[in-house]
Amino acid sequence: MRLSRSLIPTLKENPAEAVIASHRLMLRAGLVRQTASGIYAWLPAGWLVLQNIARIVREEQIAIGSQDMLMPTIQSADLWRQSGRYDAYGPEMLRIKDRGDRDMLYGPTNEEMVTELFRQSVKSYRELPQILFHIQWKFRDELRPRFGVMRGREFLMKDGYSFDLDYEGAVITYRKIMLSYMRTFQRLGVKAIPMVADTGPIGGDLSHEFIILAPTGESQVFFDAAYETMDFSEGKYDHNDPADLARFFGDVTNSYAATDEKHDAGVWANVAEKREGRGIEVGHIFYFGTKYSEPMGLSLAGRDGTPVVPHGGSYGIGVSRLVGAIIEAHHDEAGIIWPDSVAPFPAVILNLKAGDAGCDALCEEAYAAFRGRALLDDREDRAGVKFADADLMGHPWQIVVGPRGAAKGMVELKRRATGEKVEVSLADALAKINQA
Amino acid sequence: MRLSRSLIPTLKENPAEAVIASHRLMLRAGLVRQTASGIYAWLPAGWLVLQNIARIVREEQIAIGSQDMLMPTIQSADLWRQSGRYDAYGPEMLRIKDRGDRDMLYGPTNEEMVTELFRQSVKSYRELPQILFHIQWKFRDELRPRFGVMRGREFLMKDGYSFDLDYEGAVITYRKIMLSYMRTFQRLGVKAIPMVADTGPIGGDLSHEFIILAPTGESQVFFDAAYETMDFSEGKYDHNDPADLARFFGDVTNSYAATDEKHDAGVWANVAEKREGRGIEVGHIFYFGTKYSEPMGLSLAGRDGTPVVPHGGSYGIGVSRLVGAIIEAHHDEAGIIWPDSVAPFPAVILNLKAGDAGCDALCEEAYAAFRGRALLDDREDRAGVKFADADLMGHPWQIVVGPRGAAKGMVELKRRATGEKVEVSLADALAKINQA
Repeated sequence: MRLSRSLIPTLKENPAEAVIASHRLMLRAGLVRQTASGIYAWLPAGWLVLQNIARIVREEQIAIGSQDMLMPTIQSADLWRQSGRYDAYGPEMLRIKDRGDRDMLYGPTNEEMVTELFRQSVKSYRELPQILFHIQWKFRDELRPRFGVMRGREFLMKDGYSFDLDYEGAVITYRKIMLSYMRTFQRLGVKAIPMVADTGPIGGDLSHEFIILAPTGESQVFFDAAYETMDFSEGKYDHNDPADLARFFGDVTNSYAATDEKHDAGVWANVAEKREGRGIEVGHIFYFGTKYSEPMGLSLAGRDGTPVVPHGGSYGIGVSRLVGAIIEAHHDEAGIIWPDSVAPFPAVILNLKAGDAGCDALCEEAYAAFRGRALLDDREDRAGVKFADADLMGHPWQIVVGPRGAAKGMVELKRRATGEKVEVSLADALAKINQA
Repeated sequence: MRLSRSLIPTLKENPAEAVIASHRLMLRAGLVRQTASGIYAWLPAGWLVLQNIARIVREEQIAIGSQDMLMPTIQSADLWRQSGRYDAYGPEMLRIKDRGDRDMLYGPTNEEMVTELFRQSVKSYRELPQILFHIQWKFRDELRPRFGVMRGREFLMKDGYSFDLDYEGAVITYRKIMLSYMRTFQRLGVKAIPMVADTGPIGGDLSHEFIILAPTGESQVFFDAAYETMDFSEGKYDHNDPADLARFFGDVTNSYAATDEKHDAGVWANVAEKREGRGIEVGHIFYFGTKYSEPMGLSLAGRDGTPVVPHGGSYGIGVSRLVGAIIEAHHDEAGIIWPDSVAPFPAVILNLKAGDAGCDALCEEAYAAFRGRALLDDREDRAGVKFADADLMGHPWQIVVGPRGAAKGMVELKRRATGEKVEVSLADALAKINQA
């Protein structure tokens, strides 16, 4: 995209309303704008980041055989009365009357709906296990929305739901999804640690939350140094092998990790290599057995004809929250430092002298090489403004084109994360970016 | 996906509530399920179709330089009071009170919001023209929702918005978007005709709607046979050349086309090659000048310092409606006939004897070749059920694996659209599908 004709409005000043780094930087880098309290529009660059994150989340769910679908945002209150949650939920649920005066709601979660869809169509034990997920906008009417997209009212979530024949099957599914989460966070360029959690309003008796390490995170975390070197990349564990899943579950839960709420000083004392830091919750998974299938009448024909009530779980990732969390984990004084996998553009091309024939030509050549997928800073602005905005927006690579270099076909290639700069030909710069 | 473990619940019987072909077939093929009046959940196969359509719509918008973004579903009523539309809109707008008793609404369209975002950030004539779009869920509280996703309450729409310095620029943008629409519909495998339209509640003085030809469409259409052979594929017209856009606009609007509402028998009499048929509206575009920029105070610094009030337009495509419209255009007695570009799966693999070692092995080999992107009918069901469901679901190719053929490594390859069948080796079948 050409920055001169794009709705990527960078800001020089820190907006007064933003108290945390990610909120400040998302506004300053022109990623989002608030349109009502706790409700944000995703401007083109922010939307690219959100789509990159959603794509990785989706790919890792599909990789373990979870089925991608989409349930609607507006639900009937009747469904929620069946499970008993309509009255149990507080004022953060957005309740709506439609024109026929029927009670509706903007769904905060979908256990009831997916159970009902399953009940209508799935009749036999032979059709299990199944996992379904969707990546969908949710609404939570926070009393005091704050911290930008980290605690907004309208937010994007991946929520998944599983159906198994029994407890043993459900545990295998639970571990499989946990593995998919660790792969997801690793691809997103963040260090995540699963921690035993309370089940809250979802219910159930087995639950973990996933905490991303970030120096400016919301809570204090205590963890074994072993977590720093764990690797979950593909091939490391086989998600189709229950024994391998058990090994994975042991590896990822046997070392000590806790937020300050759950911290146990006695156990902590015995941890050999201690680490302390800050963390942000970005995911939460629950096994809840028959909590929804039982009251909602989901029952299947079992192998020997006896009815079977499926065991369920639900599994969330805060997709829009991750944009903020990744920035909290990856920024410096000058701005955002995007991991390559989620950056809105792999590179920004800085034309230091728009109007200079040599600069313009070399910039257009570079821009064409990315086929529209780079950002070209073609604004009529001072070089200093462009340098500052490039660091602020945080694209992994900067291709700096000035008149002296352009005359020789040379550019300055800067890696945002390290600050390292080299003077190279445009071809070499492109090769280096492609390689990385 | 393996059909035995997928939420693709096909139905043998026609559901009583479905009166039109697409509604009936979408329910029977297990693409959607209604979760409340006029509100649908997109099950895995339906969601694949919807994503394919959305991807093509998105690609063609990005190709003409339109910026992809995402605005929120919930809007503040205050924005709509500024333009005067809050009171003008009828009861189909879903009005909501949040927990702070503030008036909110589930957005039916975004002219106000995008104008406000633009006003906050864009200051100079140098930043124009710009086009922005998003593909977003909308809500319209229909009194009597019907026809499935064709007239549902929660629906997916591509809505785009343009900002130009003057009328002349706005007309170029309008034509450019019209060209992108014709390219989009052609890629989706449907014949679309633009027809002059009224502007309605959006306002403005130039408007076209896009009607897809379908034998079971909602309205009668009269058109010149010239429309049957028009070609808008890439390279035919240059969207960056105003002269070429004028030529395109002439080509696509100079021949006669009208719905029965606007039909002019006098002009019709002079059309040499007459065609009559049925049609479905799937898109609508508007030029509305300063209708929103003026009352909302959007004004830029012009070239000579004088303030400029941008000229705008808005441009819609009914993305979820297109799923129904494409089915209306492409089905027969047995079921859906998906165009290749939007099919949920390119092929379905029919295992006629699940449990037979030869059949199972050849089916798994075929399934592996598609790397999860085909549908494998591995259900323990009679061959007749599988044939009927394959025709119903409408995947472009059927790979039929029976015990006799499997023993020789042979399959039957059927093209759904033509019914043509050939007995070939699996390798030849895969080559033929890849070629097409």
